[in-house]
Amino acid sequence: MNNIKVIAFDADDTLWVNEPYFRESEMEFCNLLKNGMGIEEVTEELFATEIGNIPLYGYGTKAFILSMIETSLKISGGKIDAGTIEAILAIGKRQINKSIELIDGVVEVLENLQDKYRLIVATKGDLLDQERKLKKSGLLKYFHHIEVMSDKKEEDYQKLIQHLDISPDQFLMIGNSLKSDILPVVNLGGKAIHVPFHTTWEHELIEDNELDKTKVKELGSIIEVLDLV
Amino acid sequence: MNNIKVIAFDADDTLWVNEPYFRESEMEFCNLLKNGMGIEEVTEELFATEIGNIPLYGYGTKAFILSMIETSLKISGGKIDAGTIEAILAIGKRQINKSIELIDGVVEVLENLQDKYRLIVATKGDLLDQERKLKKSGLLKYFHHIEVMSDKKEEDYQKLIQHLDISPDQFLMIGNSLKSDILPVVNLGGKAIHVPFHTTWEHELIEDNELDKTKVKELGSIIEVLDLV
Repeated sequence: MNNIKVIAFDADDTLWVNEPYFRESEMEFCNLLKNGMGIEEVTEELFATEIGNIPLYGYGTKAFILSMIETSLKISGGKIDAGTIEAILAIGKRQINKSIELIDGVVEVLENLQDKYRLIVATKGDLLDQERKLKKSGLLKYFHHIEVMSDKKEEDYQKLIQHLDISPDQFLMIGNSLKSDILPVVNLGGKAIHVPFHTTWEHELIEDNELDKTKVKELGSIIEVLDLV
Repeated sequence: MNNIKVIAFDADDTLWVNEPYFRESEMEFCNLLKNGMGIEEVTEELFATEIGNIPLYGYGTKAFILSMIETSLKISGGKIDAGTIEAILAIGKRQINKSIELIDGVVEVLENLQDKYRLIVATKGDLLDQERKLKKSGLLKYFHHIEVMSDKKEEDYQKLIQHLDISPDQFLMIGNSLKSDILPVVNLGGKAIHVPFHTTWEHELIEDNELDKTKVKELGSIIEVLDLV
């Protein structure tokens, strides 16, 4: 990979573990609603509510908590009690306060690349959440700056690349989501490395035919990035 | 005011009306909780909950909705019904969807200054909320970029000014909050113009002795900025 000036790292499930925390909270939420519905049905309802709320609430934990509350109202048919709402708020606050578990190899990769490239974080989600996680992670010192984006579509990356004052082919994105980290960057003429994580939010999945896989490197672990750049 | 390179505008209650929308939602919330408590007491409880939640939730409408829900649980002593929770979610969604009412003089000021200075927005709050309001406002075209900050303390402005590649005395901040827009900027050696708005959130108030008022210009309307820069 030649010509790269800026390497942007996705944060959640690329630098540190994130999605499993959402899945844990979701399981707690399902167990809370002992209403005879199966876990799959509850999860589906929650997912539908979350997707419906993205235009209004965006991504992140606060949006997730609000969608859990809305789902509990829907599912209970208006019979939810105060204790359940309180428990949902507690699930959310616990999730916000979770400690950071770095993904294996991340520190080594950043150590190695920090003097050779301008490193940034390009993450979507809640501004405060992402800043807090970065501080907790101890990784801040490696990054030139942190870009929290309200979404990661082509137009969002276009703005980011313009702001960085580079051409798309000087931009390399590393992330776990084909939909948010890889597809839009490749479409813009940028470079992308896909490092899949074992758990992916349904919303981040794409159809097989949406991406020309010959244009993307897929790695088993982030440490292999060092063989490529 | 000499030497200015970048003029940063606060957004809420500087470019457009915002605080009155929160006050309206708060009144709706108070009316919802027909529990014999006076409006003042409910408002106080809500304020205490909001302040307590800032470290976790930050600023913005989603944080406000979550704090309304938490307050309703506290006040009702666990007797809140699903209908009330539903009504609180609806208050929040209505507020997110409110139209934008520009403050008088804003367009004229921006038209006039856009070719003479680099104009930016420096706002705290919810990333998606602030971006949405900017889009709706029609003001995006005037700004070099938009900085949504998780907080507006001295360290946050320091980072911003560094990122802008200017010295503090080349930075002018215009805003309605002495606490968030004026005090930290003046402390850093930057310039600041205070344009008070008729309604100010209690959290944004400061003690009289915290700020040396000789260092700050206070205007009756934003249009008067044109007489100063």
